[in-house]
Amino acid sequence: MTRVPHIKVSPDVPGIRALLLARPETAGPLTDLTQILLHAPNSLTRGERELIAAYVSRLNDCTFCCTSHAAIAACLLDSEKLVDAVLVSPDTAPVSSKMKALLTIAGLVQQSGRAVRTEDVARARREGATDTEIHDTVLIAAAFCMFNRYVDGLGTWAPTEPAVYAQIGEMLAGTGYRTALPGGS
Amino acid sequence: MTRVPHIKVSPDVPGIRALLLARPETAGPLTDLTQILLHAPNSLTRGERELIAAYVSRLNDCTFCCTSHAAIAACLLDSEKLVDAVLVSPDTAPVSSKMKALLTIAGLVQQSGRAVRTEDVARARREGATDTEIHDTVLIAAAFCMFNRYVDGLGTWAPTEPAVYAQIGEMLAGTGYRTALPGGS
Repeated sequence: MTRVPHIKVSPDVPGIRALLLARPETAGPLTDLTQILLHAPNSLTRGERELIAAYVSRLNDCTFCCTSHAAIAACLLDSEKLVDAVLVSPDTAPVSSKMKALLTIAGLVQQSGRAVRTEDVARARREGATDTEIHDTVLIAAAFCMFNRYVDGLGTWAPTEPAVYAQIGEMLAGTGYRTALPGGS
Repeated sequence: MTRVPHIKVSPDVPGIRALLLARPETAGPLTDLTQILLHAPNSLTRGERELIAAYVSRLNDCTFCCTSHAAIAACLLDSEKLVDAVLVSPDTAPVSSKMKALLTIAGLVQQSGRAVRTEDVARARREGATDTEIHDTVLIAAAFCMFNRYVDGLGTWAPTEPAVYAQIGEMLAGTGYRTALPGGS
């Protein structure tokens, strides 16, 4: 089923890119936030952070964000199978115990900030997570609760062809988010 | 009950301010986004935009964000009673038909981006809402689904004294968000 966006955006531009073009004032901070959370140097690898983004987008049932960030994660981690396993069930996926604990926190944040309990954070810390890693996991999960609602709440177009997402994955895994902004360099 | 934050933050700094201090890299784009959405010139008044922020924070049960933005809205609209009425039920509150339609959209975004239907947007448009107003309503609601999860997901401190929020309300209604950043001017 083709969805018609709820507001006038450039035709043939999918997902959040259509919205970044339509409202450049908010595109700036939204892109900066994504670049810092998912692309800037961090003790969590870029692949691990993209897994958190894809997993939360899956829980929010956001096709465009989930498929895009899963494709980026698959490029960075060189495994579609690993990404698919995380999207189905982080606890049985072949990721580190620290990542299992962080993905659990991300899943709780998707439900509600109040769902995160002291023991969930203690588990992540026992598995070696630092304060910054816990902070960034919560903020990545929270940010994708925003991005998913932004993309679907305005009814943007989510392509159905896997090749489109493979291309998005390769581009963003390579150059990051600022260059993907319309007019970015 | 006093909540102990899940990560080390400055003591005695409440809510999101503690997190902005703890991670200045993400504080920049988060503050810029808030300033553009809630404070910059817009055909929706600052009071109307703060009502959307407070209402979504209420639905997400985020005490710090709801009480803070309700206090800012009350300052800007010069009526605590009006703000309280919106927080209880936008459809019966003494706000314009356009604001009732936009608050309905914001409430749907709080549930899920996919909950917003074509007819909800058509209603807002019939009541005079522009594309930018519909866009900004969806993004404000989505952004507070992030901020609320960020603030509660890291277990930050929400003061219980009404005087604290009255002070936050007056400060932010006056000077905006960038000046409220630690180190802001």
